[in-house]
Amino acid sequence: MAHPHLDVRRAVRMALADLEDGATVLVACSGGADSLSLAAATAWVAGRSGLRAGAVCVDHGLQPRSAERARSTAAALCGLGLDPVVTVHVDASHGPDGPEGNARAARYTALTATATRVGAAAVLLGHTLDDQAETVLLGLARGSGPRSLSGMADRSGVLRRPLLGLRRGVVRAALPAGPTPWEDPHNDDVTYARARVRHRVLPVLEAELGPGVAAALARTAELARADADALDAEAEAVLAAVGTDGPLPVDHLAKLPRAVRWRVLRRAAIAAGSPATDLTAAHVAAVDALVTAWRGQAGIDLPGGLRATRRDGVLRFTAQR
Amino acid sequence: MAHPHLDVRRAVRMALADLEDGATVLVACSGGADSLSLAAATAWVAGRSGLRAGAVCVDHGLQPRSAERARSTAAALCGLGLDPVVTVHVDASHGPDGPEGNARAARYTALTATATRVGAAAVLLGHTLDDQAETVLLGLARGSGPRSLSGMADRSGVLRRPLLGLRRGVVRAALPAGPTPWEDPHNDDVTYARARVRHRVLPVLEAELGPGVAAALARTAELARADADALDAEAEAVLAAVGTDGPLPVDHLAKLPRAVRWRVLRRAAIAAGSPATDLTAAHVAAVDALVTAWRGQAGIDLPGGLRATRRDGVLRFTAQR
Repeated sequence: MAHPHLDVRRAVRMALADLEDGATVLVACSGGADSLSLAAATAWVAGRSGLRAGAVCVDHGLQPRSAERARSTAAALCGLGLDPVVTVHVDASHGPDGPEGNARAARYTALTATATRVGAAAVLLGHTLDDQAETVLLGLARGSGPRSLSGMADRSGVLRRPLLGLRRGVVRAALPAGPTPWEDPHNDDVTYARARVRHRVLPVLEAELGPGVAAALARTAELARADADALDAEAEAVLAAVGTDGPLPVDHLAKLPRAVRWRVLRRAAIAAGSPATDLTAAHVAAVDALVTAWRGQAGIDLPGGLRATRRDGVLRFTAQR
Repeated sequence: MAHPHLDVRRAVRMALADLEDGATVLVACSGGADSLSLAAATAWVAGRSGLRAGAVCVDHGLQPRSAERARSTAAALCGLGLDPVVTVHVDASHGPDGPEGNARAARYTALTATATRVGAAAVLLGHTLDDQAETVLLGLARGSGPRSLSGMADRSGVLRRPLLGLRRGVVRAALPAGPTPWEDPHNDDVTYARARVRHRVLPVLEAELGPGVAAALARTAELARADADALDAEAEAVLAAVGTDGPLPVDHLAKLPRAVRWRVLRRAAIAAGSPATDLTAAHVAAVDALVTAWRGQAGIDLPGGLRATRRDGVLRFTAQR
């Protein structure tokens, strides 16, 4: 990383290459070193590419003095030449996904809404290769297969992540003098699984298996995402053909590759009312046995008071009385 | 694990349920605790299922006194009631895969040949859930995607791995009194990556992310294997349709899901002479850009003196002069 600021600018330039002249791009900025570095690089690139670079700060109001911090971050962004700089306040105190998940969902909703409001073509997020590697390890610990290993997408709607290919150290080394980054204390709070992965797991993996582990994890994410996208699309096509809410013909299911059939069964169970968060791979495997290891067995009870049964060559998901 | 020997016997019984009455099954035994425990359980199950249980010891001749050890292992197996007990000597001093890979390849060849020779329907291997989790972590460190995460198959030819769903601790606790297991010093020699994973990486993952990590890794292996099998089969079907060694029509490639196209391109490059071990995901991505991001770019140099070029709507892999 002889010239980290060049690496970061190149990554931003590539991520914005498809935007039309005069388009506005927003940098989502927490005030942390990664997103401030992204903001500085984006201001530089935009100024030379006929784009307008603004920023959006999200204040979750979850920590003491968060409003004050949002103001100082906004001031730093204005100082870096970003315009407009918008601060949005979100309430993430409710939701189904736990504190971290709710905050993330509220943040992404607010970012997308802000992009629409100011007419921005893209919102850039400062996630690095290290963040991606951490996400893969967290997904691995869940054990729900390639989709949970596929990490964060480089593009999703208006959101883009230009720095997924760069190490955190490179991104931080590119931070210009001037703004003082604010570090979210959650990042070092080992009551959070992500902080433990960052400070205790990834360093051990790198020490024992080599410094290339983080890049290998990020590469795994990209390949796993492509695989999961392809097979999810096949499962969707099967369900579109046979109908999501009707009975599933067993002879049709039996001909599918196992990876596609598992996805079809999982989707059909969820469509019939089984909660996605409670439906495990073991449940799906038991339903699969009704197709592939049929010996007249009884139905399979599933989360959400649902029962999967096979009769007369069709599989049905029905609410239990 | 109130009754570990019941868990191990149940796993063996399920793995042998499809064998015909009177069939012979061999246990591959290194003399280690895992495979001795498997041998004891297999002798018990076979005796009650109308099967004949024998064993095969492989002597790699790589360590001092390995012949002596093979003899004492064979004696222990005879003592457990296995019959026949066969010892085979293999030479793994040559081969393309490094010492560990050559020994593994030689072992599997010898096991399959022995099964044919004694007319065995299956050869059982003592790999546990912990071995599977270690294999997934080693694959993750390579970063070559879901195939490298798919670990070991529960069945492959005549080889079967009945214990992949059981923790090593359970398998060892089921070892009957009597035989003294021999521990391969390589298992604790941290100059080997697998030993580092076993003693330094997996314990940290379990401490930081929870004791369910090993099971999550094993589940990931199963799901990743199914995904990779399905997509590999799709890629093979594409190549069978367009021909492996001819030019690839770009408009056909462009319509494929990315996960399938990457596999088609990788296989075509290997078929044209690029060594599989040197061909990286980055090479394949560069070739893919000839299909999906065509702007008249030059050909892509690949390992093995090969060049991928696009011309007149077809992709070709040709040897460079």
